[in-house]
Amino acid sequence: MSADVGFSKGLAGVVADETSISQVQGDAGRLIYRGVPIEELAENATFEEVTHFLLRGELPSESGLEATRKALLDGRSLPQHVESLIDSAGKSAHPMKVLQAATAALSFSEGVVDLKDKEGNINAALKLTAQVATAVARFSRRRRGLEPVAPDPSLSHAENFLYMIHGEKPNKEEARTFDVALILHMDHDFNASTFAGRVIASTEAGLISSVSGAVGALSGPLHGGANERVLQMADEIGDPAKAKEWVLDALKNKKKVMGFGHRVYRTMDPRAKVLRSMLEKTVAQKSDTATYEILLTVHDTMIEQLSAKQKDYIWPNVDFWSGSLYRLMNLESIDYTPIFAVARVVGWCSHIVEMWQDNRIYRPAAKYVGPESAQFPGLQKRSS
Amino acid sequence: MSADVGFSKGLAGVVADETSISQVQGDAGRLIYRGVPIEELAENATFEEVTHFLLRGELPSESGLEATRKALLDGRSLPQHVESLIDSAGKSAHPMKVLQAATAALSFSEGVVDLKDKEGNINAALKLTAQVATAVARFSRRRRGLEPVAPDPSLSHAENFLYMIHGEKPNKEEARTFDVALILHMDHDFNASTFAGRVIASTEAGLISSVSGAVGALSGPLHGGANERVLQMADEIGDPAKAKEWVLDALKNKKKVMGFGHRVYRTMDPRAKVLRSMLEKTVAQKSDTATYEILLTVHDTMIEQLSAKQKDYIWPNVDFWSGSLYRLMNLESIDYTPIFAVARVVGWCSHIVEMWQDNRIYRPAAKYVGPESAQFPGLQKRSS
Repeated sequence: MSADVGFSKGLAGVVADETSISQVQGDAGRLIYRGVPIEELAENATFEEVTHFLLRGELPSESGLEATRKALLDGRSLPQHVESLIDSAGKSAHPMKVLQAATAALSFSEGVVDLKDKEGNINAALKLTAQVATAVARFSRRRRGLEPVAPDPSLSHAENFLYMIHGEKPNKEEARTFDVALILHMDHDFNASTFAGRVIASTEAGLISSVSGAVGALSGPLHGGANERVLQMADEIGDPAKAKEWVLDALKNKKKVMGFGHRVYRTMDPRAKVLRSMLEKTVAQKSDTATYEILLTVHDTMIEQLSAKQKDYIWPNVDFWSGSLYRLMNLESIDYTPIFAVARVVGWCSHIVEMWQDNRIYRPAAKYVGPESAQFPGLQKRSS
Repeated sequence: MSADVGFSKGLAGVVADETSISQVQGDAGRLIYRGVPIEELAENATFEEVTHFLLRGELPSESGLEATRKALLDGRSLPQHVESLIDSAGKSAHPMKVLQAATAALSFSEGVVDLKDKEGNINAALKLTAQVATAVARFSRRRRGLEPVAPDPSLSHAENFLYMIHGEKPNKEEARTFDVALILHMDHDFNASTFAGRVIASTEAGLISSVSGAVGALSGPLHGGANERVLQMADEIGDPAKAKEWVLDALKNKKKVMGFGHRVYRTMDPRAKVLRSMLEKTVAQKSDTATYEILLTVHDTMIEQLSAKQKDYIWPNVDFWSGSLYRLMNLESIDYTPIFAVARVVGWCSHIVEMWQDNRIYRPAAKYVGPESAQFPGLQKRSS
């Protein structure tokens, strides 16, 4: 059984299933959601529309969109026991761990899954999408020693989230910028958290239970934690004037420069392009732009150096610019991965709803490389 | 990109990684933990010894075992906020959902993972193993309207768990039977929950965060939920005298008979053999054995019918006998999957500790079958 079987570490390149939800075209630097390029959605669509589109696979009509909007609105409150759980977490708890637990606690009222009840599962997904945003905002407030802000039903999903975070309504431009940032992060085919959610859901565990596990995967530094780390790097550099030297030093000492490279893209991540353009517009309206200037210098230095050394060109990824944008919106870096989850929850749910149409439990094989035959004598015999 | 790429649904037969922890030899009906047949461990080892063996890969010496025992003892209490979370769950919440949330809440104090700190990760695993048992027992008591029972440091892991459930110390035979049942359920190579835990941990998410996701996967009816369902079937039959007719009827109407067949074994599950033998010894000491008699008749009828029809022989799996055994120990069927988790947590942790020695994020490919090119016109254009 332990013969020489080949395998691909991390399942790299192994096709795990079919999907119609999104496709990353790594060589072309293209990302499509159900056929539509991400740039077009960033230009024309809202969070609510893309949520409808990803979950259902069809463009929302006016009445369809209204139903999606209403479900997202109606789902915004949290049950008492989930509020208490969030409030019981100390300020030092990482918000992703609090979100994973809060999400799991939302599942207490979840019944046995009916795979064929697509409509019911979509409605559960919309409610969960709304609740995840409320849970993230609530802990963000508590962590900062502030009272939670109740959702405002007159606001869109993106506006309301910023309102629950800041306690003030965002202006239209800021709300739209954040709306687009959420759209960009909503899905990315079989990334590790989506795959984790799929593996859990393949056992017919509940939608919420599966999403809680996906939150756990997104919390990992190799996955969602990257945008927080880009900002930590910017803070370590501290001063735009020192950024070039810092990068040169990092390259010389083979220290990792955060926010460059991606397992799938071999060229510019299309989301990074959109983010950079939004960032430049936002910067023009702000005074404290030090972080942006630091990252811009890091970016330019990286490109200059890597081109000069004839290295494979390493492009900035989505995490490189998102943190800088969020900081200009007065969002704290520890909340960036939870904000990623506020967007990605739509993708997770869409994948689960889709896979349940034709489900099979994920049960891969293992290559056993341990001893073939061993004994376990009683303790007395081992010790003598 | 959406060319005709082949894939194996559910990753069946796809080797996902190497492991030295356990091997299921499906054709031979053999299960080994680090080379030792499960029957030998059931005969000679305790839960504490096998925990040490699976996590570390070496037979415990007297002092090593003492350290493992002490870590398991010291880890038994739960932080206040986790107790409150468990106590806040209504009686109708499924215990697996409560356990998933409670586990995630245990992660609040978990820091950033150090992949190379094997000793620290093993110690965290031992603490978590102890806490999972306490969490399961606590909610079981609350669910039944009873006060939680504090752990007793004079008792072994298995004894203490039964004590925390029942509020009475088990006799030696019962404790040993339960100890062996836990050993049998501790690991089973890349089953769906272990695989889910691995996928999450591959992002360098924390050990506890990863195990919480594994609990979610185990909660699925296609995975851990099966032993609870065997008992539901026995209860539906209700009377040993009706069991044969029930099975004949089920076979005629292609209704599923629970507890038969397994994705991996092509012959008798070796764990089922050990369980049946323990069950027979336990039955001999009990008066209310109706469930056992029902299942025995189901078993004999299935074998008789399937042999007669020249069908592939379908063997009872581990879930077929475990529920009946647990019922004789006055454990309630809704707690059977959590009890599975009390054992399997050792396997989950062992896999995570092992994979972190040579980690790569799980990021499989997807076969995109959606539209290649679509547009997303603004709402007004769509509606007109």
